[in-house]
Amino acid sequence: MNRPDSRSVDALRPISFLPNVAPHATGSVLVSFGDTRVICACTVEEDVPRWMKYQKVKGGWLTAEYNMLPYSTLERKQRDITRGKIDGRSSEIQRLIGRSIRAVVDLKALGQRTLWIDCDVLQADGGTRTASITGGCVAVAIAINKLIADGKLKQSPLKQLVAGISAGIYKDTAVLDLNYPEDRDASVDFNVVMTEDLNFVEIQGSGEEATFSAEQMTQMLELSSVGVTEIVKLQKQAIADADKPDGDALNDLAAAFGQ
Amino acid sequence: MNRPDSRSVDALRPISFLPNVAPHATGSVLVSFGDTRVICACTVEEDVPRWMKYQKVKGGWLTAEYNMLPYSTLERKQRDITRGKIDGRSSEIQRLIGRSIRAVVDLKALGQRTLWIDCDVLQADGGTRTASITGGCVAVAIAINKLIADGKLKQSPLKQLVAGISAGIYKDTAVLDLNYPEDRDASVDFNVVMTEDLNFVEIQGSGEEATFSAEQMTQMLELSSVGVTEIVKLQKQAIADADKPDGDALNDLAAAFGQ
Amino acid sequence: MNRPDSRSVDALRPISFLPNVAPHATGSVLVSFGDTRVICACTVEEDVPRWMKYQKVKGGWLTAEYNMLPYSTLERKQRDITRGKIDGRSSEIQRLIGRSIRAVVDLKALGQRTLWIDCDVLQADGGTRTASITGGCVAVAIAINKLIADGKLKQSPLKQLVAGISAGIYKDTAVLDLNYPEDRDASVDFNVVMTEDLNFVEIQGSGEEATFSAEQMTQMLELSSVGVTEIVKLQKQAIADADKPDGDALNDLAAAFGQ
Amino acid sequence: MNRPDSRSVDALRPISFLPNVAPHATGSVLVSFGDTRVICACTVEEDVPRWMKYQKVKGGWLTAEYNMLPYSTLERKQRDITRGKIDGRSSEIQRLIGRSIRAVVDLKALGQRTLWIDCDVLQADGGTRTASITGGCVAVAIAINKLIADGKLKQSPLKQLVAGISAGIYKDTAVLDLNYPEDRDASVDFNVVMTEDLNFVEIQGSGEEATFSAEQMTQMLELSSVGVTEIVKLQKQAIADADKPDGDALNDLAAAFGQ
Amino acid sequence: MNRPDSRSVDALRPISFLPNVAPHATGSVLVSFGDTRVICACTVEEDVPRWMKYQKVKGGWLTAEYNMLPYSTLERKQRDITRGKIDGRSSEIQRLIGRSIRAVVDLKALGQRTLWIDCDVLQADGGTRTASITGGCVAVAIAINKLIADGKLKQSPLKQLVAGISAGIYKDTAVLDLNYPEDRDASVDFNVVMTEDLNFVEIQGSGEEATFSAEQMTQMLELSSVGVTEIVKLQKQAIADADKPDGDALNDLAAAFGQ
Amino acid sequence: MNRPDSRSVDALRPISFLPNVAPHATGSVLVSFGDTRVICACTVEEDVPRWMKYQKVKGGWLTAEYNMLPYSTLERKQRDITRGKIDGRSSEIQRLIGRSIRAVVDLKALGQRTLWIDCDVLQADGGTRTASITGGCVAVAIAINKLIADGKLKQSPLKQLVAGISAGIYKDTAVLDLNYPEDRDASVDFNVVMTEDLNFVEIQGSGEEATFSAEQMTQMLELSSVGVTEIVKLQKQAIADADKPDGDALNDLAAAFGQ
Repeated sequence: MNRPDSRSVDALRPISFLPNVAPHATGSVLVSFGDTRVICACTVEEDVPRWMKYQKVKGGWLTAEYNMLPYSTLERKQRDITRGKIDGRSSEIQRLIGRSIRAVVDLKALGQRTLWIDCDVLQADGGTRTASITGGCVAVAIAINKLIADGKLKQSPLKQLVAGISAGIYKDTAVLDLNYPEDRDASVDFNVVMTEDLNFVEIQGSGEEATFSAEQMTQMLELSSVGVTEIVKLQKQAIADADKPDGDALNDLAAAFGQ
Repeated sequence: MNRPDSRSVDALRPISFLPNVAPHATGSVLVSFGDTRVICACTVEEDVPRWMKYQKVKGGWLTAEYNMLPYSTLERKQRDITRGKIDGRSSEIQRLIGRSIRAVVDLKALGQRTLWIDCDVLQADGGTRTASITGGCVAVAIAINKLIADGKLKQSPLKQLVAGISAGIYKDTAVLDLNYPEDRDASVDFNVVMTEDLNFVEIQGSGEEATFSAEQMTQMLELSSVGVTEIVKLQKQAIADADKPDGDALNDLAAAFGQ
Repeated sequence: MNRPDSRSVDALRPISFLPNVAPHATGSVLVSFGDTRVICACTVEEDVPRWMKYQKVKGGWLTAEYNMLPYSTLERKQRDITRGKIDGRSSEIQRLIGRSIRAVVDLKALGQRTLWIDCDVLQADGGTRTASITGGCVAVAIAINKLIADGKLKQSPLKQLVAGISAGIYKDTAVLDLNYPEDRDASVDFNVVMTEDLNFVEIQGSGEEATFSAEQMTQMLELSSVGVTEIVKLQKQAIADADKPDGDALNDLAAAFGQ
Repeated sequence: MNRPDSRSVDALRPISFLPNVAPHATGSVLVSFGDTRVICACTVEEDVPRWMKYQKVKGGWLTAEYNMLPYSTLERKQRDITRGKIDGRSSEIQRLIGRSIRAVVDLKALGQRTLWIDCDVLQADGGTRTASITGGCVAVAIAINKLIADGKLKQSPLKQLVAGISAGIYKDTAVLDLNYPEDRDASVDFNVVMTEDLNFVEIQGSGEEATFSAEQMTQMLELSSVGVTEIVKLQKQAIADADKPDGDALNDLAAAFGQ
Repeated sequence: MNRPDSRSVDALRPISFLPNVAPHATGSVLVSFGDTRVICACTVEEDVPRWMKYQKVKGGWLTAEYNMLPYSTLERKQRDITRGKIDGRSSEIQRLIGRSIRAVVDLKALGQRTLWIDCDVLQADGGTRTASITGGCVAVAIAINKLIADGKLKQSPLKQLVAGISAGIYKDTAVLDLNYPEDRDASVDFNVVMTEDLNFVEIQGSGEEATFSAEQMTQMLELSSVGVTEIVKLQKQAIADADKPDGDALNDLAAAFGQ
Repeated sequence: MNRPDSRSVDALRPISFLPNVAPHATGSVLVSFGDTRVICACTVEEDVPRWMKYQKVKGGWLTAEYNMLPYSTLERKQRDITRGKIDGRSSEIQRLIGRSIRAVVDLKALGQRTLWIDCDVLQADGGTRTASITGGCVAVAIAINKLIADGKLKQSPLKQLVAGISAGIYKDTAVLDLNYPEDRDASVDFNVVMTEDLNFVEIQGSGEEATFSAEQMTQMLELSSVGVTEIVKLQKQAIADADKPDGDALNDLAAAFGQ
C-alpha cells in the first residue's frame, strides 16, 4: 500500500516544537505534525473556578480551549462568534484536551490556581486534536518550570508527559499519524492518548459509516504506542530547549515552517 | 469485589423497552437500563439538510439530539435554553449517537429523507449515552418498519442493529454496565458501540485523572461484547412487539417503571 | 352540532394521572387529557432566587418551565436551543403556569425554598397549557406530601387545588375541553384556571381574527366550572394514590397510554 | 374608597394622541394614558413573512413588537440586547398586541404586505399594554389612510377600531384604568380588548397570589365596556386630526406632555 | 455648489432641544438637528460597575447606549434583539458617546454613582451620532442640576459642555452638518467632538473608498469649530429652560416637531 | 522627555514582516511592531455577500475580522464565544480595518469575489489595530499577486498601499508609535491610516478624559506622515520577498521573534 506522502505505515510526519511563540503566556509552543500547526499556550490564573470554591474542592484546575483559526482550513472557516455558538466538534475536542492533560497533573499539588490551555490551529492537515494534546503538554511543562523558577511552586505537579497520536484504517491497512487526505478517506479513525510510561489515558475509535474488528483495533493501538514513544523524546527535548535563552532557536524556527 | 447492587462483574442491569411511548413520532421507545430511562424517538422528515443539497450528496441523512430533562438528575439540571447554550457534554453525546446509528444505516437506500433521533433522558443513573444509542436504534427500526408498511420504502436500509454499553474499572476490577455510583467512583470509563455481528463502531475509553493498561482495556472490551450479545436479543424482541396492536403492553409498561 | 370525537358539548376527554413517572423529582405525574400527555415534575431546591434575597422577601418561591418535546407534535418541533431562543408561546405559557399555582400556595409558609415545576409535553392534542397546570398542581401536592413525610414541613402550604381547562366557540357553539382539531377550527379560545372552591385564578380568552359576545363568554365560563369540578375529584384521587406503594399502578399505567 | 389620584372608580385617566411623531413610519402616534406614554408606529413592508409564502397563505400579515425604553421605568430597565434575550413579559405583550389588531384587520384585503406595529414605551405608569393596543390601532388607521391616499389600497381593510383598557380589584373594589400604584397593589388585574361595537377580542384576567369571583369579573368587564366606548371616540378624533396638515398640533403637543 | 436643502456650506440645520421628554429619567431631552431627532436620557444609578469595585477605582462612571428605533429609518430597521446581537455600528457609536462625555465629567467628583446615557434615534436623517453627543451632554447637565437641587451633589462635576458635529467633502467641497442625502454621497465624512472652549475631544475622519488631503481636513475642522460655537449657545439655553416649570414649553414643542 | 524604551519621539519600533505564516490562506504575514505581533491573512472566496447580490452591486467585496488571541495580553483575555458576544472594541477595530483597505482596492476590478482579512493578535503591546491594517494590506497584496499568477486576475485592483500608525500625547509631548506603557499613560491617542502617496484614509483621535488642541493634532499628524513613509518601504520589501521561494526566510523568522 502507498501512502499519499510515501511514508511507511508506522512513520510519523516530521514533528517539531517552537517554544515561546506567544511570550505573554506563561508557557507556549508552536507544534508541527507535518503541515498541521497549532499554537499551544498555557496561561496561569491565580484563582480557581467558582464551582471548586462552592464544592470546597482543594487544589487547582486545568481547562482547555480549542479553536481553528479561520485561515487554517482550505476553505475559510467561519469564526464561532459569527455563528453564535461553539462548534460541536471543537467543544468535544477541548473537553478531550483538558481530560488528557489533567490525567498527568496532580491538581492538589498545583495549588489554588488554574492552568488555561489554549490551542489555536494555524494550519490544519489532519491530527489537530492529537497535536494539541502533545503541544499543550509541552506548554504546561514550560509554564510549570517558570512557576518553579519564580518560586511559586517547589516541585512539579506534572507527574509525567502525555502525548496524543492518531491511527486509522486507510485502504484496509492500519497506518500511523494520518494527514488530511488519509483522514478523509480512512474507514476508521483512532485518536489515542498515552503517557510516557505507555499507559492509556484516552482511546477514541470510530468508524463513520463503517465498523472495525478487534484485530484491526490491536494493530492501530500498537502503532500508536510506537508513535508516542518517539513523540515523548521530542517533547522532552523541546521542554529542555525552552529554558535556553537563545540556543538553537533559529533552527527551530526554520523547522517550524518547514524551511 | 462487591458491586453496589450485588451484580456479578459481567451482569447487565434489567433492560426493558416500552415501544410507542410518543405516538406522534414515527417510531419511539422508552428504554430502561435499571433506573436509567430514556425516551427515544425517531421522526421522519421528507427532506435533507441544506448542505447535502448544496454538495449534491445522494440519499438521506440521520442526525441525533440528546437532552437531559431537568428532573432526570438528583439535583435539578438547568435547561440548555436557560444557560443559553448547549452543554458541551450533550453536544458530544449527540454526535456520538448520530455517528453510531449512521454506521448501520444505508443512507443512499434511505432515499431523500432525514431521520431525526431524539433522546430525552427521563431518569439518569449512569449509562445514558449507551442507553440512548440502544434505544435510538430500536426507534429507528420501528420507524423504518412503518415506512415500509406505508409503502414509502421497499426494503429496510437498516443493515443490522447497533447497541451501546458501558464498562469500566471499578475498585481495580473490570465491570459491565456501570450505574451512577459505580460511574462516579470508576477510575476508567469505557463506552462501546457494537453491531449485532460484534464488530466495533465506536470505542471511547477515558481515565479521568487516571490511566489504564492494555490488559485492562482487553477485559473491558470482552465484557462489552458479552453485554451487546444479550442486548441485541432484547432489541429484536422489542421491535417485534411494537407491531403487535395490544400484546403484552401491560407487562411491558409495568417493567418499564420497575413495577 | 357534532364534535369530531362525538363528545357532548360539556364532556371532558378521558383524564388520567400516572404518579411518580420521574422518580428523581420530588413529585411527578404523567397527566393525560385524551391524547394530550404532559410530564409534570416538581423539584424542590433548598434556596430562593437571588432577587428575593436582594429584596429581602420572606418565604419561598415557585416557578414553572414549559417545553414541547420535539416529537410531541405531528411535525417535529425544533428545540429551543437550536433556534437559540425560547418560543414566545412557551414563555407565555410557563408564566401562566407559575402564576396559577402560586395563587394557591402560601409562599411564606413554604419556607426558604423554591419549587420548580417542569412541564414537558410528550404528546400534544390541544389543551397542553391547562393540562400542565392541572398536572403541575398534582406534582406539587405529591412533592409537598413528601416534604411533610420527611419532616421538612409541618403542614401543607398548598391552600387548595387548582386546575385548568379550555373552552371555546366551535361551529358557533360553546364546547368544553377542545382537542387539537377543535382548537384549530375554533373562532374563540378560552383557558380558564379555577380553584377547587370554584373561584377564578386566570381567565384568558382570545378570538384570533374573530370577536365574541358577553353571552358567549358566560357560556364558556359555565362549562369551565363544570369541568373543573370533575377534574378536581380526579386530582385528589391521584394525589392519594401516589402514596400507595404499589396499588393500582398497573392499571394506571395502562390508562395513561390508553391501553 | 379613595383612588390615589382621586378618580371615581369608572373614570379614565386623561387620554391623548399626538399623531405623526415618527415621520419615517407610515403611521405613528404618541399615545398617553395619564403618565403612561407609548410611541406607536406602523411601518408597511411590501412583502410577507416566509412562512406565508411557504404555506401559500393569501393576503397580508400584521405583527407587533413591544419594548420598554430603558428610561421608561423608575429604575432604569436594562435593554433586551444587553440581557441577551427578550423579556418574557414583553414577548407575551407583543403577541397580545398583534392578535388584538389582527382581529379587526381583513388580512386578505390588505394585499401581499406586512404591517409592523412597533410600540416603544417612553414612560410607564401602568397600562402600557392596553395603551399600546389602543395607540397601535390608531397608527394602523393612519398608515392605511396613507396607503389609500397613495393609491396602493382602494378601500380600508380595517373593519372597525379596537381598543384596550385595564380594570382590576383595588382595595376590594372594581376600578377602571389602573395607574402604577394601583396596579402594584391590586389583587386582580384584567386587561380587556374590545372592538368599537363592544364585542370582546381578548380578556386576560389574573389574580397574582389571589383569586376572584364571577361577580367581581362581571363588574370589571362592565367598567371596561364604559372605558372602551369613551376611548374609541378619542381614537376617531386622532385619526381625523392626523390628516390635517397643521391643525391643532400645538395644543395636541402640549397635551401630550401634560402642559 | 448647491446643497440639497440650499444651505450655505457653513450653515447648520435648525437645531432645537425639548427638555424633560422622558420624565422618569433624571434628565432628558429630545434633540433635533433638522429631521434628525434623538431622545437622550440620563439616568442616575447609585452604584458603580463591578470592575470599578474590583479594581478599587475611586469615583463614578458614565456609560452610553445608542439605539436606532425600528421606525427611525426609511426602511424599517430590525431590532438588535431580533438579530441576536448589537449592530457593529451602534456598538462603535455608543463607545464614542461615552468617551466624549466622560472627557468633560470629573468622574471622581461625581461620587460613587453611574450616569447612564441612553440615546434612542426617533428619526434618522444624518448626523445621529453627533446629535446624540450634543443631546446627551444636555441630558447630563439637566440630571446633574437635579442631583444638586436634591442635595446629592454640592457642585457640578461637569467641567464644561461638549458638542458633536459632522463635516464632510460633498461634491469636492467641505460642508458642515450633512443631512442624509449629503452623507450618502460624500466622499469623506468627519465627526468632530469639541468642548465649549473649542478644544478637541474626538476626531473621526474617514474616506470610504476615497482618500483626503491635509488641506481638506483643515477646512472641515474649521467648519466644525464654527458649528460647535453655535451649538453650545443653544445647549446652554436648553439647560436653562429645563429648570423653568412651564416657560416656553409650547413653542419648544412645536419647534421640536418642526411646526 | 524620555520614552520608556529610549526611542526618539519620531522613531518607530523595529518593524518586520514574516510572509506565508498561514499557508492555507491565499496571502498571509506575521507582522511585528516591536512586541506587538499580529497574524494577518487574506482568504479569497469566489462569491460575494448576499446583500450585494440583492442590491445588484457589481464587483467584489473586502471585509475584515479582528481578534485578540487569549494569550496575547498580560492577563488572559476571555474568548468572544465564551462571553457570548463580540467585544465592542474588536467590532470597532474590524470595521476600521475593512474600511481602510477598501479605500485602496478597486472593488469593481476585483471581480465577483470576497477578500476576507483576518487579523489575530498573537502578542499585544500597543498599536494592534494599526499593525493589523499595515499587515492586512501586505496579506492582500500577496493574495492578489497569487490571483494574478493563477490567471484569475489580469491586473491588480490594489491601487496603492495603505498603512496605519499611532501617535499620541505622552507626557505632554507628541510621540510616534506608542507601545503599551505609553498608550496606557497617554492623554491623547491618534490612529492614522494613510496611503503610500501620503493622503489620509482615516483619522481617529480621541482624548479619554482629556482634550487636545489643534496644534497638538498637527504635530501628531506630521509624525504619522513620517512613520507611514518608512513603513511603506518595509511593506514593499515584504511583498517582494513573499514571492521568493526560500530567500532570506531564516533571517526574517529570527527577526519576527526578535532573535
